[in-house]
This record gives sequence, C-alpha cells and structure tokens, in this order.
Amino acid sequence: MNIPKLVRELSRRKGRDERDMVVAEGHRLVTDVLQSGAGVVAILAADDVAQDSLFDTARKHNAEIAVVPRKEFDELADTETPSGVLAIVKWTPAALDAMPSSGGRVRALVIDGVQDPGNVGTMIRCALALGAACTIALDGTADLRNPKVIRSAMGALFRHPVAQTSWSELRDRWGVAAPMILLAVKDGPGIRSLPADLRDMAVVIGSEGHGVRADWQDWPSETRRVTIPMQPGAESLNAAVAAGIILYELSRGA
Amino acid sequence: MNIPKLVRELSRRKGRDERDMVVAEGHRLVTDVLQSGAGVVAILAADDVAQDSLFDTARKHNAEIAVVPRKEFDELADTETPSGVLAIVKWTPAALDAMPSSGGRVRALVIDGVQDPGNVGTMIRCALALGAACTIALDGTADLRNPKVIRSAMGALFRHPVAQTSWSELRDRWGVAAPMILLAVKDGPGIRSLPADLRDMAVVIGSEGHGVRADWQDWPSETRRVTIPMQPGAESLNAAVAAGIILYELSRGA
Repeated sequence: MNIPKLVRELSRRKGRDERDMVVAEGHRLVTDVLQSGAGVVAILAADDVAQDSLFDTARKHNAEIAVVPRKEFDELADTETPSGVLAIVKWTPAALDAMPSSGGRVRALVIDGVQDPGNVGTMIRCALALGAACTIALDGTADLRNPKVIRSAMGALFRHPVAQTSWSELRDRWGVAAPMILLAVKDGPGIRSLPADLRDMAVVIGSEGHGVRADWQDWPSETRRVTIPMQPGAESLNAAVAAGIILYELSRGA
Repeated sequence: MNIPKLVRELSRRKGRDERDMVVAEGHRLVTDVLQSGAGVVAILAADDVAQDSLFDTARKHNAEIAVVPRKEFDELADTETPSGVLAIVKWTPAALDAMPSSGGRVRALVIDGVQDPGNVGTMIRCALALGAACTIALDGTADLRNPKVIRSAMGALFRHPVAQTSWSELRDRWGVAAPMILLAVKDGPGIRSLPADLRDMAVVIGSEGHGVRADWQDWPSETRRVTIPMQPGAESLNAAVAAGIILYELSRGA
C-alpha cells in the first residue's frame, strides 16, 4: 500500500467517497481512534517524532505503518501546524434503519444543513457526550468525512452511531413511530419550559444563517419549537454551542 | 489611506498590535460591526459584489471605502471562500480595571490559555449571549485580534467588555473583592449541585488538552471545581461548548 498516495487521494471528497475512508490527524486523535476499535487501515508519521508505543498499538490492529520526512508529512497534512501523525480509517455513515429506534430521552441529534465542518464535528462530539442515542446528518450538511469534521468530533464519529440521509427519506422512514421533533429556533418557547417527562425526542439544529428548513412544517407528526434564552442584544449562538446547551438541558430529566 | 496595504499589515500579529486594529470579514459580520458602534476605519470590497447599502452605512460612520478586483480581494482575505467584503476596525482589549466590578450572577468568563482562535471567539459570543458581564482572556490564550477570533465572535467583541491580562495580574488586582472562582474541571462536583443563590461568580475555562492552570490552587479567595455531567465513554466537550453549557446553567437562577 502506498500510504502517502492514499492520504493524497483522501484529501478530496471523491477519494473519500470511493474508498469509504477518512483521515484522522493528530496524536491524541490517532490514539483515541486506535482505542475505539475503528478499522484503522494505516498510520503515517513524520520522521522527527518518536511514535513507538503508538506504532506498537497500530501493529496489534494490523494497521500498516509508513514514516516519511517531516517536509513530506507537512505537505500531506490538513492542519496548519501538523503534530506529525495521522491514521487512515475505514468509515461509512450508517443507514438510517440501523439507528436506535428509541433512545430514552433524546433519540437523535439531527443536523439540518450545517455546512461548517468544525461545527458538525463538534455537534457529533456533543451528541456522544450529552446522551443523544445517535446523530443524523441531513442533506446540505458538510461532508462527514471532511478532515475537519473528523478532527473536531475528536473520536466521537467512531464511538457513536451517525447516519446520513435526506429530509424526505427521514420523513418516509420514521413515519408514524417518529420521535417528537424539537426544532431549535430563535423565537420559540424557552427550552426550560419543556415538560420534564418528555421522552424519545429528536433535536433539530439548523445552520446559523438559515435555521432549520421550512419543510418541517409538513412533518407528519408532532413538532415543537424551542429557543435558548439569550440576553437582549445578543443575536445568536454558535450552532454547536446551541446543540450542546439543548442536549445538556434535555439530559436533566434523563 | 492604502486600504489593501493596511489589510496585509493586519494579517500579521505585529501589525495588529502596532495599529490596534482588527479585520472583520464577511457581509453579515461587517453589517453587525457597523451597527455596533465600533470604530470602523475602512471597508474593502471585491468588485463583483454590490454593497451599496453597506457602503452608505459605512460613509455615515466616516469609514473609507475601497473596491478591488475579486482576485486581489481573495488574496487579501483570510477565509477560504471569501464573501467579498471586510472591515478594518479599531479595537483594543480593555483594561482589567475597566471591567464591571459586579455582574449579578456571572461577573466574568475567564479564558485560561485556550489557544484555538475559533474557540476563543465562540466563547466571547457565548459570554455576551448567556449573560456574563465581561470576558477576561489570560496569558496563553490566542491573540484576541486574530481574524478567526473576530469571525467566530460574530460581533460580540464589539458589544461586550473584553480584557486581556495575566493570571498573576488578575490575582493582584481582584484581591479580596474577587468573585467566586468556578473552575471547569473533568472530575469535580456536577454543575447542577451549585446552590441557586450564588452570585458574583467568575467561570474559568481552560484548554481541552491541559485544563485550567495549576496556579488556581494558590488563589487567595474561594474557588470551586465544577464538572458538566457526561455520558460514560465520552472523554470531553469542546471548550466553547463547555463554556456555553456552564453559562447557560448559571443563567438559570439569574
């Protein structure tokens, strides 16, 4: 296997889609991915950083290892100040039908067209940490295999079920057994006013610019609009922060 | 004024420090900065986007305007897909003594050595939206004039008091009238167990890698450790999300 060539291929979406692989960069993330049981195909490291114990772990997982000069590593890396190690990992979004059909209090975090990959990854990390049973990325959302999604998810992508689908497929598949849809909006009832005994919810977070899509008004079962109370003069919160706060609030009664 | 040359100078920290200026990029942000009353020195726009109403507003604020070919704009811009407009704004962190001396429930969000500029800006945006009376960035934190801080703060930097200082200066200045220090840690008491009648707190968020600095054990007045409850298997939250959740939780009793 030509590992540097493969990394270069995976820098483009086409390459990632064809190979069902992602690049996870940075020592902490690579260590975490190896621990998570994800399918690590290969490790690439710069020659100026000793990675012996990480290499030992990688060999136990049958991952191939390549070491290249620092200059070549930096050219292949996606970050501005590369730490010197990355992993190539098999990863495919799961099918919607494979998602948990009931998740206790929050069945799913639904990412509705958030394009910033850092926000998308951070939202998946929030979903894992704050008790959503799965994450569903709708059409219009950043490519889940984007290296910034992988980095900002900090391993959560490999420890938490994530599906990718379209809004209309979600409507068709969830049908009558759908969870209660909570739409994060700017002008709805305060999130603290939600009854504490609600169960089986799906929290929908839209992009900061456009909010959740208008289609939700045609959703066949119950939806509720919720808003995070903010100070006067503050226009909005970062989308990932909003996801974190709403999931945190909902974890209160869990 | 040679606006393109000034933008180029401000792309380096040295230029920003010497001129006490920042670059705010993107149509939404420039509009917001003009509304905020911040000192907009100049506007630079690409020639392929009509900005008439924005230019009108800028002229009312006595800002100079320059239009350059799109290719030149893209070279000057800090973002990967520039929207075609940016503002040069006078901005200096305030002095610690100019911060509010009592802020009701949360007097300050203290950023303790967070290096990622996107996280730092998002934290300032959280502080404004969720009711911290000011933000204090300690030594080791990203340059507050970094263009990514400005973008991710989404105008909050111009609407909310922000100071920059060192830990030891903070200790010397706050002295005995210090707010109660809440340290966000991974293994403290759950944040929901805080008494609802606490007032005048300072929430300290450290970096994801290192947490809050060890020096806090020598803080001369009361400190408390607090933790956001997380699911088993989840290692941590993004620093800005953690700030958002803690400020949200504390705004409950406000």
